[in-house]
Amino acid sequence: MEYNREQLIEAVSAQMPEKRWTHTLGVMETAVQLARRYGADPVKADLAAILHDVSKYWTIEKMRNILVEHKLNDELLLHDKQLWHAEVGAFTAREVYGITDPEILDAIRYHTSGRVGMTLLDKVVCLADYIEPGRDFPGVHNLRELAQHSLEGALAGGFDSTISHLIARKQIIYPLTVLSRNDLIKQLEENI
Amino acid sequence: MEYNREQLIEAVSAQMPEKRWTHTLGVMETAVQLARRYGADPVKADLAAILHDVSKYWTIEKMRNILVEHKLNDELLLHDKQLWHAEVGAFTAREVYGITDPEILDAIRYHTSGRVGMTLLDKVVCLADYIEPGRDFPGVHNLRELAQHSLEGALAGGFDSTISHLIARKQIIYPLTVLSRNDLIKQLEENI
Repeated sequence: MEYNREQLIEAVSAQMPEKRWTHTLGVMETAVQLARRYGADPVKADLAAILHDVSKYWTIEKMRNILVEHKLNDELLLHDKQLWHAEVGAFTAREVYGITDPEILDAIRYHTSGRVGMTLLDKVVCLADYIEPGRDFPGVHNLRELAQHSLEGALAGGFDSTISHLIARKQIIYPLTVLSRNDLIKQLEENI
Repeated sequence: MEYNREQLIEAVSAQMPEKRWTHTLGVMETAVQLARRYGADPVKADLAAILHDVSKYWTIEKMRNILVEHKLNDELLLHDKQLWHAEVGAFTAREVYGITDPEILDAIRYHTSGRVGMTLLDKVVCLADYIEPGRDFPGVHNLRELAQHSLEGALAGGFDSTISHLIARKQIIYPLTVLSRNDLIKQLEENI
């Protein structure tokens, strides 16, 4: 089944509460802006943003079943369920909505954790998720400022805010988030 | 060559400036206290503490040569030089000072980073290094309080302070520190 953009928006928005869809609209807007600013493909950024949270409000059982049945990511099952929707979302984008572009699928897959060696599109979608207009957390204004001139700096700051939040709450830190963050710091150091 | 405790102290203290030896005396005292409180071997804690920083003030070249020549830890060479002295220190404790007890050698090896599955002695020495009386960093008083009743809680707090410090300075976070910290959080959750 093929979806045009309008049909995709209709189908994906039906997978989440209205508030989360409002967040998605913010990520779409911000991802397209960032794509234009930093030279990523705005059409791909828009598509990845539309789909990034498609599985966010699915039940834990539904996500676990998909991860296990399709052997998507064994390690992920050991970590917080908040991380599952990104991998399941990429799977769903391909299997249900017919997205075949690996760049778009990866941007969905890594929009929460990042990865070592993030593509430009990965960075754009991940940062848009942190700074879209509806977000409100300590430091978000600084990140929005920083995003005007440093994609990597702002995204590293986003990951740092996640890590600090988990430290303050004594929760497990997903190791890939730290590796992604370290990789961005190295990129920033190399570009000085 | 065999060293009794007095000779060991004389030899090791000669490897560092007086200020760092004062720190070592603090770690020795605190490690023995923690060992008594939590049921670790105070004699082993004392020996590990004496030796934990034996290589701290060696030149980078000397440490690198030892790591490379004896193939101690390839990955470590990619990370901050501040981490090298622990691995080199364990090697030196064995090769120069004749320490053969693997528990003591591991407590020296992991005193900076920790590891997943830290032994009681690892935890005691690592925490003593954070909270000995000469230490002064944000939150150290809280950690000393916490150390009265939770070895794992205080040590997780120590690692958290290291991670927060590296975030604030935009420096690379050693992944093993995060894994060690996560492992302690899991132990705390299992013991609730």
